[in-house]
Parts: sequence; C-alpha cells; structure tokens
Amino acid sequence: MTVDRTVLTFLTRHRVAHLATADAAGRPHVVPICYALAGNTLYSVIDRKPKRRTPRQLRRVRNILANPRAAIVADVYREEWKTLGYVLVEGAARLIAHGREHAVALRALRAKYPQYRKMRLSDRPVIAVTIERAVRWGTP
Amino acid sequence: MTVDRTVLTFLTRHRVAHLATADAAGRPHVVPICYALAGNTLYSVIDRKPKRRTPRQLRRVRNILANPRAAIVADVYREEWKTLGYVLVEGAARLIAHGREHAVALRALRAKYPQYRKMRLSDRPVIAVTIERAVRWGTP
Repeated sequence: MTVDRTVLTFLTRHRVAHLATADAAGRPHVVPICYALAGNTLYSVIDRKPKRRTPRQLRRVRNILANPRAAIVADVYREEWKTLGYVLVEGAARLIAHGREHAVALRALRAKYPQYRKMRLSDRPVIAVTIERAVRWGTP
Repeated sequence: MTVDRTVLTFLTRHRVAHLATADAAGRPHVVPICYALAGNTLYSVIDRKPKRRTPRQLRRVRNILANPRAAIVADVYREEWKTLGYVLVEGAARLIAHGREHAVALRALRAKYPQYRKMRLSDRPVIAVTIERAVRWGTP
C-alpha cells in the first residue's frame, strides 16, 4: 500500500515506538522498541541491550511465531493535551535471521542509532513489519 | 497478588503508558493512555480528548469486550541505553460505566492529571486492569 507521507516522516524521525503482539490464545504483549524504516517496512532487531531471555525465548518472538499480527504505535507525551498525537501502524511481522533483508535492516538501524554502530548484530534476529494499515490521530 | 513496590512507585509517578489489547482473532492493538493507580488496579478513562470514534466503537473497547486480556507498559526513552527500563503489567480488563469504582477511578485520575479536573467524565467508560502479573526490565 501507499503510506501517507506524514506517517512515514513521523516514523523516520521518532526514536522509540511500542510493539504489540499477541500469542496464539490472543493474549497481548507490548514492549518499547527501537526501530528504523526502510521503504514501507519497519525493522527492529533483538539487540544486545540486556534481555531477560535468549532471543527465541522472548515473548515478542514467540508471539510472532505463533501469530504474526503486529501493531506499532509511535507518539510523544506532552502535558499540553491539545498537542498530543500518534501514528499507529499494523501489519504481519516476519522474523529474519540473515540474508539481504537482514543486512538492509541493520544498515537502516545503524544509520538511525549511533548506539548500534559498535554493537555486534549480525547474528541477531530482526523483526520486520511491512505496513498494511496506518492511522494518524491528533498532531504527531 | 502483591505487586512489587518499585513497580507501583514507577506506575504512580509515570504520566503515560501504552495499552495493548487484542480482538477475538488475536489481532493486537496498542495506544498511548493516561492512567492512574488505585491499589493494584490501573484505571484509564475514555476521555474527551478528540477521538476518531464514539467510546463503544473504539478498538480498545471493542477488543476488551471480545477478549479481556490486556498488557500495559510504562517506560521512558533515553539515548543513553544503559539507563533504559520499563514496567510491564498484565491483567484482565473490565469496562466500568458507573458506580462506586467508576467514582474511585475518576478521583484517582483527577488527582494525577489537572487536565481532567475540568473535563466532564461522569458519563465516560473507564477501563480497569487489576494487575495479575508485573515484570520489570532495566532501571525504570
């Protein structure tokens, strides 16, 4: 689909988003994520920030393997509520372990986050969500 | 359950969280929410910030009616990743239209957010999530 330019611009500039997934029984889960956009696809890597579990044990990963639907929201909170806004995107999530798209994702993530430039990520799975639906609310 | 005091303190101080729900088919949804805590229950009101739909048409409301499971994460993003942290809580969500618990919720929300003190909320549904599980990561 063609994604609204305001949505893409906001997602490109914004530094953190929240990824919601659900397990096979429909039990939802949500975590903050760093992400980068390449085309209409949003990439997030299971990075080396401390984690409670190994990549395959993480709930976001287990959920995506059981149920690929994902929703991601990006927003900024301000006390002046008239200025609030968010962008919500939805799509099917894929896990990518290696190959060309994995390299594209790491390149986009390292371009956006200097923190990733020194982190070894080549062996870390990437979550890819190609935007199928996008909603804007307020003034993101 | 007894909820870790660090979790409750963080949730009490924090101003925004992200609520994930899923529909009957397990399709997740996530939105930023304002919320207040009373005891071990987190309350969020379908307030009068501009909305794209009426309360009953909102996806968070339709999802909760179809599937009460909810997950809520509160976190702060910082570029110094060593200082990142979040609190994730889960529970069954209930919709409350009126009565004693509705009043408790509005009182807690108005104590926390001056913005709510002038907003008419008595006819607005409240989402209540009693914490059944709480996870901390990093240094929230």
